[in-house]
Amino acid sequence: MDIKFKFWLEKDGEVLVGNGKVGLLRRIEELGSIQKAAEKHGMSYRHAWGMIQKIEKRTGFKFVETQVGGKDGGSAKLTSPGKEFLRNYASFRKGLDETIEKKFQKAFKK
Amino acid sequence: MDIKFKFWLEKDGEVLVGNGKVGLLRRIEELGSIQKAAEKHGMSYRHAWGMIQKIEKRTGFKFVETQVGGKDGGSAKLTSPGKEFLRNYASFRKGLDETIEKKFQKAFKK
Repeated sequence: MDIKFKFWLEKDGEVLVGNGKVGLLRRIEELGSIQKAAEKHGMSYRHAWGMIQKIEKRTGFKFVETQVGGKDGGSAKLTSPGKEFLRNYASFRKGLDETIEKKFQKAFKK
Repeated sequence: MDIKFKFWLEKDGEVLVGNGKVGLLRRIEELGSIQKAAEKHGMSYRHAWGMIQKIEKRTGFKFVETQVGGKDGGSAKLTSPGKEFLRNYASFRKGLDETIEKKFQKAFKK
């Protein structure tokens, strides 16, 4: 028997981000490109862009800065508040999975 | 911004119980009746019964004992392993919501 869980953030009852969007944002930061990040997540650029716009609209700040042109046809990086948000989220999640797993094992004496 | 989460149990990749089923089982124990518990959860007896059968099939043990007859047309109570399961689950969840909430507040310095 396994314990499963899922986290997400809401603001005024609306979903801001779950693990999907957090993963996409991390990938944008890592790859410097919305296009490449979207590909890695098996989604279209358009879909990824829509997700970013939703997050930005709901949090009220810009997450991603894009630059047009260059040899790869434009690049993207996270803004400072975007990076801070990801840092905070990583800090929140750090060790949490293990805490939950241990508590579960202990309760069910496995 | 609020942190939201959801827990459920799986066995061999199949969902055993989430909060819905745990709540229904607790209510059966409390009210001594599947019918009354189902009503409280806004579901039909048939649906509640189906849920119980799914849990029992997937965990491999009986959760609910029913007795036919009596003035209310039958009663239901949890079996010992059923009760133990709920106790374990309650022990797992105890304090966990607060732990998650605190970790979230700390990470996002709210």
